[in-house]
Amino acid sequence: MRATYLYGTRDIRVDEVPDPEIQKPTDALVRVVRACVCGSDLHRYHDYAGEPRPMGHELLGVVEDVGADVTTVRRGDFVICPFGIQDNTCVYCREGMQTSCLHGHFFGTGGVGGAQAEAVRIPLADGTLVRTGTALADTDEALLNSLLSLSDVFLTGHHAAHMGKVGPGRTVTVIGDGAVGLSAVLASRRLGAERVVLMGRHTDRTDLGVELGATDVVPERGEEGVARVRDLTDGQGTHVVIEAVGHMPAFQQAYGVVRVGGVISRVGVPQYEDAPVGWGSLFGRNITLTGGPAPVRAYIEDVLPDVLAGRIDPGRVFDRVLPLDQVAEAYRAMDAREALKVVVLP
Amino acid sequence: MRATYLYGTRDIRVDEVPDPEIQKPTDALVRVVRACVCGSDLHRYHDYAGEPRPMGHELLGVVEDVGADVTTVRRGDFVICPFGIQDNTCVYCREGMQTSCLHGHFFGTGGVGGAQAEAVRIPLADGTLVRTGTALADTDEALLNSLLSLSDVFLTGHHAAHMGKVGPGRTVTVIGDGAVGLSAVLASRRLGAERVVLMGRHTDRTDLGVELGATDVVPERGEEGVARVRDLTDGQGTHVVIEAVGHMPAFQQAYGVVRVGGVISRVGVPQYEDAPVGWGSLFGRNITLTGGPAPVRAYIEDVLPDVLAGRIDPGRVFDRVLPLDQVAEAYRAMDAREALKVVVLP
Repeated sequence: MRATYLYGTRDIRVDEVPDPEIQKPTDALVRVVRACVCGSDLHRYHDYAGEPRPMGHELLGVVEDVGADVTTVRRGDFVICPFGIQDNTCVYCREGMQTSCLHGHFFGTGGVGGAQAEAVRIPLADGTLVRTGTALADTDEALLNSLLSLSDVFLTGHHAAHMGKVGPGRTVTVIGDGAVGLSAVLASRRLGAERVVLMGRHTDRTDLGVELGATDVVPERGEEGVARVRDLTDGQGTHVVIEAVGHMPAFQQAYGVVRVGGVISRVGVPQYEDAPVGWGSLFGRNITLTGGPAPVRAYIEDVLPDVLAGRIDPGRVFDRVLPLDQVAEAYRAMDAREALKVVVLP
Repeated sequence: MRATYLYGTRDIRVDEVPDPEIQKPTDALVRVVRACVCGSDLHRYHDYAGEPRPMGHELLGVVEDVGADVTTVRRGDFVICPFGIQDNTCVYCREGMQTSCLHGHFFGTGGVGGAQAEAVRIPLADGTLVRTGTALADTDEALLNSLLSLSDVFLTGHHAAHMGKVGPGRTVTVIGDGAVGLSAVLASRRLGAERVVLMGRHTDRTDLGVELGATDVVPERGEEGVARVRDLTDGQGTHVVIEAVGHMPAFQQAYGVVRVGGVISRVGVPQYEDAPVGWGSLFGRNITLTGGPAPVRAYIEDVLPDVLAGRIDPGRVFDRVLPLDQVAEAYRAMDAREALKVVVLP
């Protein structure tokens, strides 16, 4: 089969490799129906040295085969696969922290390939795969991108809003107009936020953000951007700030626009280890810092009915579709900001 | 009257100064019945240059006089004074964030003296002072230290537990066996914590911590201390970690012992600005960082009945009493760790 590998910085290739096989009785083999490229894939794409690494961790698929111990999915099931592997039964999984599953791991490690491929072996299939409840053949094609978004991007936005305790009466600033930021806008509105300020400067993206529920757009950055958000909020800032970028200027912007006693919720993977958290940034105003990798498995059942019923359309963050053979172009286009998020069709 | 000033590093003096007077119709004059020395006073004591600075921000007192607009207290009332001044009506005060009151400030600023004095002018008296509901003459002297603890130390410990969402079924680690740490132990048990691990190495203090409700004591620090707490908790760490020190090693210990998805709640004023918050410390395990200066005004009415009824005895953190003229000795003894927390009697 064909599968995507990162060979070095900005060097993405599709290789012919052996088909994956069931190795353990808890495995499933899944034929990939749709995969996509993630902002976090780009972090590696920008700077990589080492063995060729299998890429991709978001997929919709159809179960081809299952190991003897798998009970919740069977051949032919149309499934959503979260971006992490989990047993969904350990002490952390039971608390909704599946990204810290005691027996879990991520794609591209533990002998598991990447999702930007024709097929992938999924360990701990009972804990990982979620059936959509429909057959692929019976599923409206217009829903497929929204279903795909439940493997990572929309539920990462949802996680940010959930950890930030977004709800009715809350005001929210979303920093970053990438696919996760726009997902966080939609997720915040779904949870009842009364006002969502989107900080971003790419007009095509912030326009989509407004369609997804942003009430205000602030294109300025840094101190100027902070001043604009404060102007919009009686000088106070917003109760919640979702930081969906991961770079230090976004973190600084976050504590600049967060309200006294408010929450900064991060889902952009931090590209820094140390950051300001002392009296002048967080402590003095009782600011809470939260967030982390999204345990999307915890949220799929909650959100899936809204997608299937068409009440939300999180798949709108996908603005291009490319065949697997052109996956390198998908990376290039996203890196150049010509595409927001690209679907990959095996 | 006599009042305490910091003249320079480790140079505490009691000066004769003019009596304070009502300046605004919202002021009250309060005769100090008991004051005390705070760990945060010691931070300044260790390193100070500048004009002589009035010291102290914790007091029980009796109202001597009030301005024309003051309605909630009157001459003769026995009152608890929180460590900050607030109107208790602004948008932040109404949300329980009185330390960020739009019109508030701290002692020793805004023309207000220190509490380690015979008397002090209290601005915004209606928002700041809380009547105990008893006359001083009728109050059991054994309760006075516990009432004094409601001006800062016990409610700072309570704030840490509150922000960390301590409650039934939660496990807690308290880092630091100072007066705030021990207060956090008591506050955590009062809120229903099932297990409280106290990290501290001063046996007399940790013994008191056990009496106040600590279920385990870990004297080791650094990696060894982290390993001990993990051993005690099936390798997981505790749901909540209260960091009551303020130095970087305590912060590092905090993320070492916090459980996946848990909360680090800081009330030790951070003596650093930058700290690790990236994938390896907080983000990767969805750890929440919270805390800040305690809005004690928000909590007094909730906790006061428990003190008056003798259900809790937070005043036990005071282990020495000195007259105002010996306040320099109070600082020295606390700095040398000969005393845990010293009451100052004007």
